[in-house]
Amino acid sequence: MENCLFCKIIAGEIPSKKVYEDENVYAFHDINPNAPIHVLVIPKVHIASIQEVTEENLSAVSAVLKVIPRIAKELGLAENGYRVITNCGEDGGQSVKHLHFHILGGKKLPVTLA
Amino acid sequence: MENCLFCKIIAGEIPSKKVYEDENVYAFHDINPNAPIHVLVIPKVHIASIQEVTEENLSAVSAVLKVIPRIAKELGLAENGYRVITNCGEDGGQSVKHLHFHILGGKKLPVTLA
Repeated sequence: MENCLFCKIIAGEIPSKKVYEDENVYAFHDINPNAPIHVLVIPKVHIASIQEVTEENLSAVSAVLKVIPRIAKELGLAENGYRVITNCGEDGGQSVKHLHFHILGGKKLPVTLA
Repeated sequence: MENCLFCKIIAGEIPSKKVYEDENVYAFHDINPNAPIHVLVIPKVHIASIQEVTEENLSAVSAVLKVIPRIAKELGLAENGYRVITNCGEDGGQSVKHLHFHILGGKKLPVTLA
């Protein structure tokens, strides 16, 4: 999608520190990490947010979910654990309007969720 | 699964404030809300955490993802937005070892993710 930062990252038009890539999914280190390890996992197809998940694009979102454990393991997070977050809209603090799942770990994360 | 709090909630052995239920998914209000609206969405099948998502149980997890937008809309969160979180393991602060997605909203959530 034109003018979408993450679509441009997927297309290689904007550089990123890639962690994982397959036919449906792209993952890269967050440029402003919020934890010792902070990776974003996104579907290659443009979906604006989790609120836009439908029967039609569900397989793309499932593909993201499926690789999160694998990516977490590769990042060394499988044993101690991690947090997965997706923000939606204004109240959620969503910055880029392309569905993305944050993987956060590498320390004991604060319990507060909101 | 025996001695799993959320399996007991699904089975009706422990009461909960139900928000949504279908063949694969159960959703209920968190007993200790962290935001004005705080709902947990869980697969009915026992999966310990997102780290345990596999090809075999992916459809159960996808079913959860698919209904989150619908539940968010019914909770009045679709317009202003919300946050979806799943904690995994010790560092993630996972309390109950049955995969659950928190839906948090009803206010502008803090930007800090970790």
